[in-house]
Amino acid sequence: MKAAILGCGLLGGSLAAALRSRRLSSHLVGYDLDARACSRGVERGLLDGSAASAAQAARDADLVVLATPVGAMPDLLAQIAGTLGPAAILTDLGSTKADVIAAARHALGPAFERFVPSHPIAGGEQPGLEHADPDLFEGCTVVTTPDAQTRPDALERIEALWRACGARIERMQADEHDRILASVSHLPHVLAFALLAQIAGQPDVQRRLTLAGPGFRDFTRIAASSAVMWRDIALANREALGKELRGFVAMLEDIEQALTAGDAQWLEQLFDLASRTRRKSSEGGHGE
Amino acid sequence: MKAAILGCGLLGGSLAAALRSRRLSSHLVGYDLDARACSRGVERGLLDGSAASAAQAARDADLVVLATPVGAMPDLLAQIAGTLGPAAILTDLGSTKADVIAAARHALGPAFERFVPSHPIAGGEQPGLEHADPDLFEGCTVVTTPDAQTRPDALERIEALWRACGARIERMQADEHDRILASVSHLPHVLAFALLAQIAGQPDVQRRLTLAGPGFRDFTRIAASSAVMWRDIALANREALGKELRGFVAMLEDIEQALTAGDAQWLEQLFDLASRTRRKSSEGGHGE
Repeated sequence: MKAAILGCGLLGGSLAAALRSRRLSSHLVGYDLDARACSRGVERGLLDGSAASAAQAARDADLVVLATPVGAMPDLLAQIAGTLGPAAILTDLGSTKADVIAAARHALGPAFERFVPSHPIAGGEQPGLEHADPDLFEGCTVVTTPDAQTRPDALERIEALWRACGARIERMQADEHDRILASVSHLPHVLAFALLAQIAGQPDVQRRLTLAGPGFRDFTRIAASSAVMWRDIALANREALGKELRGFVAMLEDIEQALTAGDAQWLEQLFDLASRTRRKSSEGGHGE
Repeated sequence: MKAAILGCGLLGGSLAAALRSRRLSSHLVGYDLDARACSRGVERGLLDGSAASAAQAARDADLVVLATPVGAMPDLLAQIAGTLGPAAILTDLGSTKADVIAAARHALGPAFERFVPSHPIAGGEQPGLEHADPDLFEGCTVVTTPDAQTRPDALERIEALWRACGARIERMQADEHDRILASVSHLPHVLAFALLAQIAGQPDVQRRLTLAGPGFRDFTRIAASSAVMWRDIALANREALGKELRGFVAMLEDIEQALTAGDAQWLEQLFDLASRTRRKSSEGGHGE
């Protein structure tokens, strides 16, 4: 199977590495706006070749993988729509699904039925293809959100590929995916960014960071993520994220009120509910 | 030197272990409301004995360490005030300082000049004396916040002890400590608790947690902390924490507005400032 990887970052590179190490693809071509990212992929043996355009990469591919920030996908889809082979299947690795599906429906025409939206819930601390890991998807969850028009055989082939890379599949509606991810991924990222931005705005920022402990470092690790990638995710999922944000602000206002009132019991109950939920979640077997 | 450790949790147990392994104390007595915590300390060889009361533990001690949640310290100080030897020095491991100093001033009378407020910025994922680590303070920062009345010789002895345990000392005013820690420690804990509480309130909490990725697990690790300990910290530092909370709510409201307006540039700038600040902070050499 010939595969085209459009977007050669950590996820695209890791999928290329996973396909290669498991002998799932006989030929891997990459494309990235930053041509050096592709060259590094070829040098490292993850890719067989680097294409000059997305359309060129997609032309002979049996499998096309969109692995860019979600904001770049509408253009990318428009660029490849005319060159897809009649049997090519497509998937994406985007963190939001309803917007990517809408863009694919708009750009792909009849090929839309061979587009399988997917979201591997994986990531690493270090961005970029140079940190690609063939086992990144081992044990992780991949959400697929097929549309009513998605062909069952395309869906099954993409899900089988993910399973072969070690992932567990959760199939659901795009709206449910976006709603849940707003709560457990997009909101936490926004909170971590907001906290760092608040600290960065203080005159004694350096002193503050010197006194930050291991808890702060865990909490803010996700704030080192790519600003462009998260700008795109936040805007693509703005409705669900906005709802979570408003709920969170209301919760913070309740907490501030309890602090002012000195309501120790309410605070302890809230913190205890949170603490028990967190400890239960870490027993889920996904490791710490 | 005879030492009394009042509160046999992770921090008290780790300090006992550090003093013992570095031969800084010839006799270590523990006291805890939960007598089993002390017994475990004796069984594990961290403590030489377990006292029936805080006053009994403190009676013959050259060094008294308050290692309970900060909310328990006023009572504890009142219990030991009458039994302290005339040369005994005291310190605490509390995460807030102005309130602990006020309680010590109130309870200790003339012995207040031998009380050295300190805060080791250390912690572990697992609470309890059974996870005590003699090297927990190795490389960590300990903030001391001496009062105008604190005797310089007491301050120097406590700081020398911390250095002998591997820590680096930052001396500052209690108010500055509380203001900075509100921003880099207390607020993040409140945010992590609030996020988990928000998720716990949803009907599909289990499904949400199943779809939480490694970023969520990092971000919420501190939400597994003790509810009682953090209730005490939040209330003890309510003024500075309240100020940080209000600033944070204003930041979230700006973000929500930018989402609604689709202001990609503003969002990217904010996220980029945060991301650069976070990456710079991790170059500080405190490790990830």
